[in-house]
Amino acid sequence: MFAMGVSSTKLGVIIVAGGVGNRMGASVPKQFLKIGEKTILEITLRAFLGRSSEVVVVLPGDQHERWAAICAESGLLGTHKVCSGGATRFESVRCGLGVLGECDLVAVHDGVRPLVSAEMIDRGVEVALAGGSAIPLVEAVDSFRVATEGGFRVADRSKLRAVQTPQIFRTDLLREAYQTEPQPCFTDDATVVERLGVELGYYAGERSNIKITTPEDLVIAEALIGASAK
Amino acid sequence: MFAMGVSSTKLGVIIVAGGVGNRMGASVPKQFLKIGEKTILEITLRAFLGRSSEVVVVLPGDQHERWAAICAESGLLGTHKVCSGGATRFESVRCGLGVLGECDLVAVHDGVRPLVSAEMIDRGVEVALAGGSAIPLVEAVDSFRVATEGGFRVADRSKLRAVQTPQIFRTDLLREAYQTEPQPCFTDDATVVERLGVELGYYAGERSNIKITTPEDLVIAEALIGASAK
Repeated sequence: MFAMGVSSTKLGVIIVAGGVGNRMGASVPKQFLKIGEKTILEITLRAFLGRSSEVVVVLPGDQHERWAAICAESGLLGTHKVCSGGATRFESVRCGLGVLGECDLVAVHDGVRPLVSAEMIDRGVEVALAGGSAIPLVEAVDSFRVATEGGFRVADRSKLRAVQTPQIFRTDLLREAYQTEPQPCFTDDATVVERLGVELGYYAGERSNIKITTPEDLVIAEALIGASAK
Repeated sequence: MFAMGVSSTKLGVIIVAGGVGNRMGASVPKQFLKIGEKTILEITLRAFLGRSSEVVVVLPGDQHERWAAICAESGLLGTHKVCSGGATRFESVRCGLGVLGECDLVAVHDGVRPLVSAEMIDRGVEVALAGGSAIPLVEAVDSFRVATEGGFRVADRSKLRAVQTPQIFRTDLLREAYQTEPQPCFTDDATVVERLGVELGYYAGERSNIKITTPEDLVIAEALIGASAK
């Protein structure tokens, strides 16, 4: 491998925004809901624009027009590529990979995690550069139980870690991994890449880097953005 | 067992507020931090006052004076008992049980979960009346990994449930359970009662019923309270 610094790395980014947001109870796809003046997807995109060589936003085809209008208003036209997603997250990432140009690393990120920090992205890039992959984990705060046939048993909280995005990989590794057939166990990119038999690298996520899936999450995200702006 | 309705049930409540709140980075114990005009512990207490026959607040001895002053200001003197906690949660609950008078059910609740709803308490009481115990669970939202000797393996999210409070029990059951010796695996009351060999009952918790442990949680709680007041 070449010695390569964080600053000289060509980082490609795939932002997956395929969801229609059923849990949100809103008619608007959740990535288009607003936090303050900006849509969630716009905030997510802006988090990566200064730190990457190329960004691909994967979005259902019937939402492209709406997104283009948002981008025109916000001066975001021409800053990134847009492509249509597939029926599953796996297919959406594969679509994104098909559009993405040449780069050293690829970061795959949820479109509805707008609160990812610059520091967190940098940490992930560093770990991925060193070992080929970087999966962000945060400690579990709650106690957990695990469903069994008869009921629930206690889970060992000290061993549980919540998985976030961006998950960052050496480009060749991620491309190779996505040549496989989709499987139900592919819940994120880590599970896809793991199938190659490689050992994954991990880095520290951030609790504030929440995934917005319910109306309450939107309230929480607004509060966190408001607090960090103070 | 007697047929007993939710409304005629004598519900005793033990609110455990033993923490000094190291993770909060504040010099004030976290139960005394404010959400709006009120301390967290006051909001938690008020959630139970109308729905219980008796409330015991378990609080470190050196915080009693401060709490009494808060109660005097807020008209809460005489609405509940206060007792000193022990070095562990187990000992604190046992202290609370020592002070608690006669009641049909006992609900044990974290002092820093102020957002518990009346509906949730009622649901738990109903389940505990029917089967002797009621442990609130909510579905896991994030993906999780489990620490192994070599790294982390994927956890099956569909089987994971986060455990909350109030955990509600038939009084005789909880008293019997707490006659045992404390053990490191006793992370909540469910794990203590389970040691008797009884099968636990479960009920639906609420995602908004968060445990406030970090400055971010406080921001989140403020936002959720603000949103529900709208």
